[in-house]
Amino acid sequence: MAKVFLPKGTRDLMPATMNRRLMVIDTVREVFARYGFEPLETPAFERIETLTGKYGDEGEKLMFRILKRGEGGKRGEVDQALRYDLTVPLARVMAMNPGIPLPFKRSQIQPVWRADRPQRGRFREFYQCDVDTIGTDSPIADAECIAVVHDALTALGLTDFTIRVNHRVLLGAMAAAMGAADQEVSLLQALDKLDKVGRDGVEKELLERGFSGEQVTQLWGFLDGGTIPGAADAEAQLKTIVELAYTLGVDPDRVAVDRTLARGLDYYTGPVFETVLNGGYSGSISGGGRYDGLVGMFSGKGDVPAVGVSLGIERIFMLMEEMGLMPDTPTTTQVWATVFSEDTRAATLEAAAVLRKAGVRVQVSTRVGKLGKQFKDATSRGVPFVLLCGPDEAAAGKVTLKNLATGEQQTAEPAQIASALGA
Amino acid sequence: MAKVFLPKGTRDLMPATMNRRLMVIDTVREVFARYGFEPLETPAFERIETLTGKYGDEGEKLMFRILKRGEGGKRGEVDQALRYDLTVPLARVMAMNPGIPLPFKRSQIQPVWRADRPQRGRFREFYQCDVDTIGTDSPIADAECIAVVHDALTALGLTDFTIRVNHRVLLGAMAAAMGAADQEVSLLQALDKLDKVGRDGVEKELLERGFSGEQVTQLWGFLDGGTIPGAADAEAQLKTIVELAYTLGVDPDRVAVDRTLARGLDYYTGPVFETVLNGGYSGSISGGGRYDGLVGMFSGKGDVPAVGVSLGIERIFMLMEEMGLMPDTPTTTQVWATVFSEDTRAATLEAAAVLRKAGVRVQVSTRVGKLGKQFKDATSRGVPFVLLCGPDEAAAGKVTLKNLATGEQQTAEPAQIASALGA
Repeated sequence: MAKVFLPKGTRDLMPATMNRRLMVIDTVREVFARYGFEPLETPAFERIETLTGKYGDEGEKLMFRILKRGEGGKRGEVDQALRYDLTVPLARVMAMNPGIPLPFKRSQIQPVWRADRPQRGRFREFYQCDVDTIGTDSPIADAECIAVVHDALTALGLTDFTIRVNHRVLLGAMAAAMGAADQEVSLLQALDKLDKVGRDGVEKELLERGFSGEQVTQLWGFLDGGTIPGAADAEAQLKTIVELAYTLGVDPDRVAVDRTLARGLDYYTGPVFETVLNGGYSGSISGGGRYDGLVGMFSGKGDVPAVGVSLGIERIFMLMEEMGLMPDTPTTTQVWATVFSEDTRAATLEAAAVLRKAGVRVQVSTRVGKLGKQFKDATSRGVPFVLLCGPDEAAAGKVTLKNLATGEQQTAEPAQIASALGA
Repeated sequence: MAKVFLPKGTRDLMPATMNRRLMVIDTVREVFARYGFEPLETPAFERIETLTGKYGDEGEKLMFRILKRGEGGKRGEVDQALRYDLTVPLARVMAMNPGIPLPFKRSQIQPVWRADRPQRGRFREFYQCDVDTIGTDSPIADAECIAVVHDALTALGLTDFTIRVNHRVLLGAMAAAMGAADQEVSLLQALDKLDKVGRDGVEKELLERGFSGEQVTQLWGFLDGGTIPGAADAEAQLKTIVELAYTLGVDPDRVAVDRTLARGLDYYTGPVFETVLNGGYSGSISGGGRYDGLVGMFSGKGDVPAVGVSLGIERIFMLMEEMGLMPDTPTTTQVWATVFSEDTRAATLEAAAVLRKAGVRVQVSTRVGKLGKQFKDATSRGVPFVLLCGPDEAAAGKVTLKNLATGEQQTAEPAQIASALGA
């Protein structure tokens, strides 16, 4: 029994898992790049004053604080904390690089850390995966948020999804029309639970929150398509964005304008997006929106137009596993090169070198002889082919490739074997 | 002026830098995979007791400690620290996964954190890039360390390097033959500076450390090729490993057996490797060796055979920049799609969608009209092509692609433009 343990709520990503995650990340990164979102990385920690006051009381509690190092640090003094999300670091980058050409389009795929109570499928270290366009209020930027999510999910094989879109101003206008302009956040928080608790549940909560039965009836009227006073501009904006998304190639069947979509976060100022997988999967796999007030927080320049969207990459990894969309090989190694004897070892290594040079992924056995064991090594790891080189083959400058699933085998020169493997 | 700052000794990796780093990492990862080294990731932090006592007094001081979160934590209590290297986490993984098939070959490319005094080119957060083979004493594993470094550097275009190899036992045998078996570490530490201070400098230091002039003369005799008593097995082992590396395709001109190579770290137990770039570049770009005593530290099972090598990836990034081996485009975006007017916007977006679907990386301008400014946007970012779609082109279902470097342009359907771009 090991005497060491992982930190609470963390995990090792073993090779079989990592291979799959890297495949997903590469796919997503490529889609991002096609839209001009280029990668950014920021440090794992930020100065404590950069993060303090940005995530509410709850967030403050969950932040991992780091003790000050070196001279001058009082005992127990904290000067840094681990990154809690990717948005505050982005705002810091924008403030520190005032000359950066706008719009600045960046993707960022990095872990964040939150000291949440660990639960099944929820960890204290997890990856976030964001794209944002900073510095333009063009509706193209909003439409691209829809399009990039559409293309990324499609590329991953998660084809049956719905991107719900709404406009934050519509929600504000509804609150105002209900005579509850000052309770807008309360309204949002209740409405955000609609998926989970249904209209009855939301109604109950709204009444508890002090809304009247009449106001609730008015709300259902708006959600069912009733005209919302003072919301014509927002409605038109939303229409434009959705149409631009279609023009960008988004399948209209994958988009639904949905006046009930609240998104809990109160920093959104314009269109909001949320993507759900159809067919009974609960929870969202992507969310975002326009948040013009946030990025300027450090620069003191007032509102900086910003719109972005986040892929719920950890949930996507999990769902893709469940749905069988991940490759079923636990390894990317294609060929297990057996070593028949010390005498043929050099011939095997030479063949392995030829295959590798051609791009084949080869692991050379560190056992010598006992071929049965070497075959088991390959099978137990899920490596699909073994390479054999006995004395006859070595003398002829050939090797034998055997497909472990079908039993088929062929003997040829290493370069031909590489070609047979498609390399 | 921004009111926010980066944490001391850290940096943001902006898109132009990240694109290059990702290119290098992808290349290296591919070479690793061809040798059967598959990716592992471990959490950013470890339990404090996992790291304590592993890095000496100096390391202990440089470790970033994290305050305990949640209930039961005394004020100021530390329960975790940021990863200081990738080797201790690997030893923990091995101890916690006793059933893992051996040999276990893993690559790991992740940041580590050390609160060093920041200097030019040295940061408190930096990437390490390791491959290790755990659980076999086969010389193939040692030879593959040489081969994988050889192939990775060659693939990166860093072709003029020397992989110096030595054997830790040779150094021990020299010390013993000099009657200084108990001063072996002291001898190593002095010898490790040979590159920097020359024989005169090492001699001076050895005399200061209490070695006699006679012992120093004896040492030069060994280093110049004299027979080292009791070192025949190690010599033979080293010869085997180097020959196996040649068989694996390593260019013999890139390898030098070098009895002066000490490698500062005293945990090596067998062959040691160090790679330098020829032509006056100081410092190593890769180092490693066999360290059979380390991986068993947590499992209590005694020695676990282990051999590995580390690419100095941060130094490699820097050298590749200096040597002009990085792509000279600051962006991976290929095409800047201009928007002539609101009327042609849809045609531009449709063309962008066709190009993207074919794999072309397109950024759509968020400006409308003022084409001169849109051209400047493209030029200032280093995007090589602009796409134009005026009213005539839009009516004909065509677009114009212009090469900004040569001024050449062609008008065609978007699909043909995609082909022209090699997509």
